[in-house]
Formats: sequence, structure tokens, C-alpha cells
Amino acid sequence: MQRTVSSSLTADVLSPVDLELQVAVARADGLDVDERLEVTLDGAPLQPTELDDPGPSTPSRVHVLRCGPGRLEVRYDARVTGRAAPTPVTGLDATVFRRPSRYGDSDRLAALAVAQLGPGVREDGEGEDPAVVRDRVVAFVRERIAYVSGSSRGTDSAVDSLLMGAGVCRDHAHLVVALLRALGVPARLVSVYAPGLAPMDFHAVTEVLVGERWTLVDSTGLAPRPAMVRIATGRDAADTAFLTTYGGELRLTGMTVLAVVDGDLPVDPTSDDVYLG
Amino acid sequence: MQRTVSSSLTADVLSPVDLELQVAVARADGLDVDERLEVTLDGAPLQPTELDDPGPSTPSRVHVLRCGPGRLEVRYDARVTGRAAPTPVTGLDATVFRRPSRYGDSDRLAALAVAQLGPGVREDGEGEDPAVVRDRVVAFVRERIAYVSGSSRGTDSAVDSLLMGAGVCRDHAHLVVALLRALGVPARLVSVYAPGLAPMDFHAVTEVLVGERWTLVDSTGLAPRPAMVRIATGRDAADTAFLTTYGGELRLTGMTVLAVVDGDLPVDPTSDDVYLG
Amino acid sequence: MQRTVSSSLTADVLSPVDLELQVAVARADGLDVDERLEVTLDGAPLQPTELDDPGPSTPSRVHVLRCGPGRLEVRYDARVTGRAAPTPVTGLDATVFRRPSRYGDSDRLAALAVAQLGPGVREDGEGEDPAVVRDRVVAFVRERIAYVSGSSRGTDSAVDSLLMGAGVCRDHAHLVVALLRALGVPARLVSVYAPGLAPMDFHAVTEVLVGERWTLVDSTGLAPRPAMVRIATGRDAADTAFLTTYGGELRLTGMTVLAVVDGDLPVDPTSDDVYLG
Amino acid sequence: MQRTVSSSLTADVLSPVDLELQVAVARADGLDVDERLEVTLDGAPLQPTELDDPGPSTPSRVHVLRCGPGRLEVRYDARVTGRAAPTPVTGLDATVFRRPSRYGDSDRLAALAVAQLGPGVREDGEGEDPAVVRDRVVAFVRERIAYVSGSSRGTDSAVDSLLMGAGVCRDHAHLVVALLRALGVPARLVSVYAPGLAPMDFHAVTEVLVGERWTLVDSTGLAPRPAMVRIATGRDAADTAFLTTYGGELRLTGMTVLAVVDGDLPVDPTSDDVYLG
Repeated sequence: MQRTVSSSLTADVLSPVDLELQVAVARADGLDVDERLEVTLDGAPLQPTELDDPGPSTPSRVHVLRCGPGRLEVRYDARVTGRAAPTPVTGLDATVFRRPSRYGDSDRLAALAVAQLGPGVREDGEGEDPAVVRDRVVAFVRERIAYVSGSSRGTDSAVDSLLMGAGVCRDHAHLVVALLRALGVPARLVSVYAPGLAPMDFHAVTEVLVGERWTLVDSTGLAPRPAMVRIATGRDAADTAFLTTYGGELRLTGMTVLAVVDGDLPVDPTSDDVYLG
Repeated sequence: MQRTVSSSLTADVLSPVDLELQVAVARADGLDVDERLEVTLDGAPLQPTELDDPGPSTPSRVHVLRCGPGRLEVRYDARVTGRAAPTPVTGLDATVFRRPSRYGDSDRLAALAVAQLGPGVREDGEGEDPAVVRDRVVAFVRERIAYVSGSSRGTDSAVDSLLMGAGVCRDHAHLVVALLRALGVPARLVSVYAPGLAPMDFHAVTEVLVGERWTLVDSTGLAPRPAMVRIATGRDAADTAFLTTYGGELRLTGMTVLAVVDGDLPVDPTSDDVYLG
Repeated sequence: MQRTVSSSLTADVLSPVDLELQVAVARADGLDVDERLEVTLDGAPLQPTELDDPGPSTPSRVHVLRCGPGRLEVRYDARVTGRAAPTPVTGLDATVFRRPSRYGDSDRLAALAVAQLGPGVREDGEGEDPAVVRDRVVAFVRERIAYVSGSSRGTDSAVDSLLMGAGVCRDHAHLVVALLRALGVPARLVSVYAPGLAPMDFHAVTEVLVGERWTLVDSTGLAPRPAMVRIATGRDAADTAFLTTYGGELRLTGMTVLAVVDGDLPVDPTSDDVYLG
Repeated sequence: MQRTVSSSLTADVLSPVDLELQVAVARADGLDVDERLEVTLDGAPLQPTELDDPGPSTPSRVHVLRCGPGRLEVRYDARVTGRAAPTPVTGLDATVFRRPSRYGDSDRLAALAVAQLGPGVREDGEGEDPAVVRDRVVAFVRERIAYVSGSSRGTDSAVDSLLMGAGVCRDHAHLVVALLRALGVPARLVSVYAPGLAPMDFHAVTEVLVGERWTLVDSTGLAPRPAMVRIATGRDAADTAFLTTYGGELRLTGMTVLAVVDGDLPVDPTSDDVYLG
């Protein structure tokens, strides 16, 4: 499979800021990525530093830079060949990704999740198949959360989304993540380029640990999972934001995202396990 | 310095649970730890598996085991010689530990933190010394949060603690963590054995990144920092809980914690940078 | 029917406070109340002022007084003969008691309530019978909220209770109130003396407007509704607290509540409409 | 003084709804109101029922009607002559308007309010002058809450507004209300027509009980208080919404508000007590 992805941001930087970007495709065995990241301020090139996550369990690349006042442009282009091998599951994955997180507040949801969708895995010693729990959670979120652009805030957590019954992709993914953790199933958020998504944008989906594999689910159903390309992986959107700034003042003035597959868009295999490749 | 620490838990396990323990002293250069962890069920020994955090930035050890019904006893004893060398600061530390987390919800606190305690680092390009911001935040939390046993819930975040004006050590640490991140300063939570703490218990404190060192603060002021021994390190209490269970049913029936220093308890150097040794 | 109710509070007033008491039986046609309210400070009698709610729709009596330092004792005794006639339904009742309130936060629950228990009244023009919606809501709360003493905080709202899956009588009543309002059915909270309640305490129940009558429900099922005696009526516990203080410092040192029926305790008629008499 | 006010709403009613309107000027001694309220569905007149609040303490008029599918138009016009006499303060006002309410969640804010702005009235027996507390609270809210159109949600409470540091007029009014109650000063919300407001809209302000008078404050400072005309009065925006619907589906398609004074707009007397006339 050949996939072409790109994103560009423009912003007015009013006073110097620390920038963190997560727009580059995650490195993975089996994936050949021919990429270019260009950052300019008033047309002059800037050189971001790439930070690697030291743990293999959350393959993410963060590009950081400090950037004075001016007109900022960020452009990322990548030609992605092949499919990523499954991400190795490390010893702590099952532990870390069952913990509550900022937007995946599974501890607040625990009682409701068990009453509504339980018992979840291992309630009485053996418990349910994580894949069955996963599918039940995804169906519940799909039914309960209407996809409504602009309906949510950056500070909304899974509890907020459940109450509002509406949200965008990150809200879907956070509620799936939180309900799964509340039911004892490790889950994490992945930001992706998603060919076929309309309108095109960065997308957020969920990886669920079933057996020894991170399987991929998307309760929005807005794009075929086999075509998706991983960007950042983490506990929730706090770990995967495409742009974070500290200090100073920056106003985003434009953003475009593009993701296409050579040839026909693959069909989403609704009933089988899917892996992010 | 010689320190002796121990903890013991007893619990009735009513149906099989997955247990995660974080009671063992973190490994560190300069620290010689002679330790023993014993877990028994109805008197018969169980063998937990030790999981290591792969990243050097958050030195934690998690002991996991699956445990059927019965009377559970956990006992950890360690004799700790020397002082830990400073934890290396990895490339992603400054990034990861400025992110909001479940109980360190710095994004919700951001506007209030800047209005109350700002501007924080780098507001206008250069900004304030992180050490000055740190000391201001610690003084604020010390003044605002009364230490009241039993006043908080396990699901309370920094915002809740700020509103209630009361809490225990983890609430102090979460509010310090969240305010610092909101002001652009990386901060994290550390669970410790704390000689001199009264009443004795597990303790939670905060590490703040100043320059290239993780400095140690404790707005409760309940125990001298130079005597503390690191257990687990993470974004907040979700990463450092001494006991987490999934599935099944477990009732904690008893817990004791002990931590002493050979000779005199060191005095807390209130005005200087302190490192967790 | 003859009912005898009483309550007593003792408190240490450390600095002068404004006190508001709602412990006296509400006036009602058909009810003959022979009562006595005694308030003393260090044994000397104090004279509270009785404030009447001007609107007939929320029959409540508030006794207010200002009280200097000392040992406060409040004692209320009443002999209640007869049964109260139905409370008149005024024009604004259906409007005011469908509004969200502090602890009956129906606006936050709206989407979830409709998805879970809807459509509620008049979704498509005619809608469901309010009595059917009421019974469905009561059954849901009974199933979802475990009665656990000490599990909730005074600041918890219906949303909090739903998430925790546990609470006391006021939490039950708040969740019933909030879900009903979210489904378009007016509902309000009533504090009562409840013969048969064990352990004996002040109790909180819900009145639901069905047709032109305020019907009485209690998802805790802890006491027979026909025996209950109304104290205060309002939007939620903010309107019905037995004791509220402003300024100063007061520490409650003791409280007893008593409520009995002459002869046999009536049986709760589980399937029929019940009115607070 | 002569004031002319009007408002109009247009909406598509997709399925039958219960409508509640609060757009009409409140009745008051001293105020001569020549008004007209017209409601049409697909051009045919509808006759709303006017509900009066039975208690004199919260002068509000609610117009209710049931309305089938079609294009709804509501138009209210009033010519207001004279100035309203002060609203009588009834016995329960000081009690009811110190209670926490849905959006004026003073109980959650209590500790922070006292620490930040306290002690408030009567902390140690005599306490502070309510007018001084009021002015301190208004100055605090003015400094802390930036007026940002579209920054808040209908479900936001005072706590949310304090944390976000931004909001619109109702958020300003809710935070003023909640902080005052937390400090022991009765306060309530009033919706008004506000000549001079730009851009013109319904406006929300706060009445604060000082001595025996409800004084008027507005931390937004966006319009002169002497020109304002009272619409609805209540605990918070739950009591004063210009439009509330139950059941069915209604989409607001347009709204205009107009309010002018004959002659020059009065100047806001920033330093003196002001009453809503």
C-alpha cells in the first residue's frame, strides 16, 4: 500500500513561544517513510529538534522549537510505503494503559461502566473476552455520541462527552478509552492520518489490547481503519496534540490536512480485528 | 545515610483479582538497597512479577500478580544505604511532565494560575526563573490547602483540592504539580517513604524541573526532604498508587508503613534546592 | 393517623453565627400539629424568628436566629394528627420545578437521560404518561444507586451520584429529581420525618408532578411513604437543609431524630400513586 | 425617564414543543409599561398564558404556550415610563438568595472565596459591611473574567467561569452571585434590557442585598445601570432564560433585541449604590 499524507499550519506568533509539534508519521518496522518537515518564520527556515519517546511502547515523535514573533508556517509531507508491523507490547503496557488519564477518566466512570456495560474482564476470576468487551463499548459509544463538529472543548473528558452525548473524534476516542479501562481492558489513543475522512482533518482513534496485540477501533466509523497512518500514541489527547504551545502568544490562522491512498480506498472490515498498519 | 523502610498490607480477597503493587524502593545509582518483598495468600507464598518502566525518566517498579480468594499479606522491607544520584533528565521529560494529567489537570487551571501566580516562565520571551515560580507555587499551596485527614476522595483532582482548600499529601502534591505545569514548569509526582512523617504513612511529594535537575518540594512540610526514599515516579497518583486492583473484589484490612533514619533525622533545608536522594 | 416526631441537635458555637433551621413540620390543611421548638444557648432560651415561604407552592418554614458562642441545643417535638390534604399546584410549579438546580443538575444529564430512559414526555407532540416516566426513573435509580452511608459529599449533585453509583437518601432523591426534569417531568425534593426508617434520621424523598397532583416517590425504599411527614419542600437539598449556618464557626456535636406512628406502621403500596399526607 | 425596548425571536419548530418565554418587562410600582407581545405560528396568532410568580420577592412573568410544527415568531415591544420603586425585600429573601444554585455554586466556591476575598460578612460576629464585600467581589470578577463572546456554555457554572477566566454577561453575573453568597451576602440574577449595550442583546446583571435594599452591580461594565429595565429575577440563569423549551424540537433562526432611552444615555455612577429602576 502506498499512502501520501501532508499537513500544514500557519500561525501568527505574537510573542516568543515554545512549540511542540506531533505531525510526523511514527516510525515502525515495515513502514518506509519518505518525509519532509519544513518550519519557517517570516519565510526563514527554522530547525526543530526531534525528541523520541524512549519507551518502545508509545511510538511518538515530538518536534520542538522556540520561535520568536512573526508568521509561522509548518509543512509536513510524507510518502508512506508498506504496512507497519504490529507495535510490540511491552511489559508495562497493560499496566499503564489501564490507568485513568486526563481525558480518559476511567476512575470516575467505573461504577457506571460496570452497571451499563459490565462486568468487564475478570470480574469473577475468569471474566469476559476483552474483544467482546471492546466491541460492546464501541457499539455503545457509537450509539450514544453524535458526531457534532464544534460541540466539545479541549478540556472535555470522557465523562463530559458521555453526558453531552455529542462530540468529535477525540471525544469518541476518549470515551472508548475510558470505558474500556473502567472495565479492565487496556486502551490508548492514537492520532492518525485517515484517508477517506470527510471533511479531512487529523483523526483520533483507539487501540485496545486484546491478547498480545493492540487492535484498532474507531467508534466514529468515519474512515476505513486499514488506510490509517499512525502519528502519535499515548494515554489521551494530552499526549497526541498536533500542536502545543507554552508561554507567549500564538494564533492559529490556518490548517490543512491531506491523506490519500494510491488506488482504491480499502473497505473497513467491520467484524474482524484490525491493526494499525 | 542509612535508612530502613517497610510496609505491609493485609487484605481479604473475595474473588480473584489482578494486583499491582508499587511499594519497592526505586533503583538508582548511588543507592544500595537490601530488600525483601513477600506476598502470601492464606500463608502460602506467591511470586509477583516485576515490571520495569522502560524509560529511564520515570524510575518505577511495579509488582503484578493474579491472586485468588483468601487472606492476602504483602510485606516489604528494605535497608537503604547511600544517596541516590540525580535522576537523569531525558529529552522528553520537559515535554511529558508539562502535559495535563488525570489529577494534575493543569489545562483547567491555566487561566486562574496565570492570573493568580503568573506570568510563569517565558510569557514574554524570557520569563521568570522556574525556581522562583516553584517557590511561589509551593507557598501558595501551603497557605491555601489545609492538611485534613480524610477530607479528599481518590477521584479528586487539583481543581477539586483548590476549591475545597483542604486535602492530604496527594492533594497538596497534585495542586503543586498542576499549577506548575499551568505556568509552563514541568513537574511530577513521587511516592516516597518519609522518615519523620507523623502519623507514618506513604507520602506523596513533587519533583520540579529546574534547569537540568529534578528538584524536590513538599508543600505539606510534614517531613524532612533529605530523608525521603523514592518509590514510584509519574504524572500523578494514577502512576504511583501503592495498590491497584482490577476485577474481583478485595478489601484492605490493614496497612502499616515504617521509615526511619539511622541517627538523627536530617533537618529540612527550607531555602535551598533539594534533590531526592 | 397519629404521628409523633422529634429531633434534637447539639452544637458548640465557637463564634457568632447566623443559623437557619428547617426541622418543623410544614403547615397543611388536614394536619393538626401540636408542636414545640426550643432553642437554648448555655441553657438560656433563644427565640428564633419563623419565616414563611410566601408562595403556597413550596410549603416550608425556616427558623432563623443569630447565636453567640456557647453550647447550642435545639429540640423540636410534634404530635401530628390527621393527614395533609394535597398541596395545591400553582401555576408556576410546572415551570419552576422543571428547571435545573444546584444538586438536581438536569441540564447536564439531559442527553444521557433521554438516551437511557427517554424519550420522556412529549417528545413527539403527545409523549409518554408522566407516571410511566416516573416509575421508570425510580426503578433505574433504585438499581443504579447503592445506599452507602457516608459515601457522598454535601456538594455532590445528581451527576456525581450517577457516576459513583452510590449515595444516601439525598443522592437518591437528587438523581430522581434531575432525571425527571431532564425528561420534562416537574419534580422537587422534600425533607421528611419517616417513621420506620432505620437507622432513624432525617429523610429526603421526591415529589413528582403527575397531572394535577404532586405524587411521592422514594427510590431508597427505606420507609413506608404513607407515614412520612413533610418538613421542607424545594428544588433540592439547598432548600431543605435542616441546619445552615453563615459566618462564625459551629461544630455539630450530636443529633437525634425520632418518628413513630401510633399503632402499626402502614405498608408502602408499591404500585399505586402515593401522596405526602 | 422614557425607555423603549423590544425583542424578537424566530424559530423553526420541527415537532410540538412546550415554550416558556421571559421577555416581558417585570411589573413594578412606579413603572408604566405600554407593551405588546405577539406570537405567531406560520403567521397565525397564538395566545400564550402568562404565569405570575406568586412571591413578591422575585418579580417575573413567564409566558407559556404549546406550539406545533411551523415557523414561530415572537415579538415583544414595550414603552416604559417612569422608574421602578425598589423591590420590597421579603423575609425569606436573605435566606433563599444565600443558597447555592445551579450556576451560582457558592458551596463549591466557599473555601476559595474566603481565602481570596474573605472573611466576608460576620465571620467573627460583626463582620464586614456587605457593600464593601460587594465592591471587592465585583472588582475581582471584573479583573479575572475577560468578556469573550461565545466562550462559555449554557451548562457552565460560576466555578467553570472562574477557572476559564472568560465568559459573557451571564458568566460574570454568576460568578459575582456565587462569590457573594459564599461570603454570606445574598445575591440574585436579573435579566434586563440594557440601553447602551453593544452589541445589543439580552443582558444579565446581579442584585446584591445591602441593608434593606437590593443594589445593582454589573462586573462587565458594558452598559449604564440606571437605564436598565428588569425582565426576570431569580437564583441564576435557570430562572431567567428568555426561551426554554421542553419536548419536541425547535431551532432558533434569529433574534434581535433593542433598548433605547429617550434623550441622552445616563452615565453609570461608578461609586454609588445603584438600584434597578
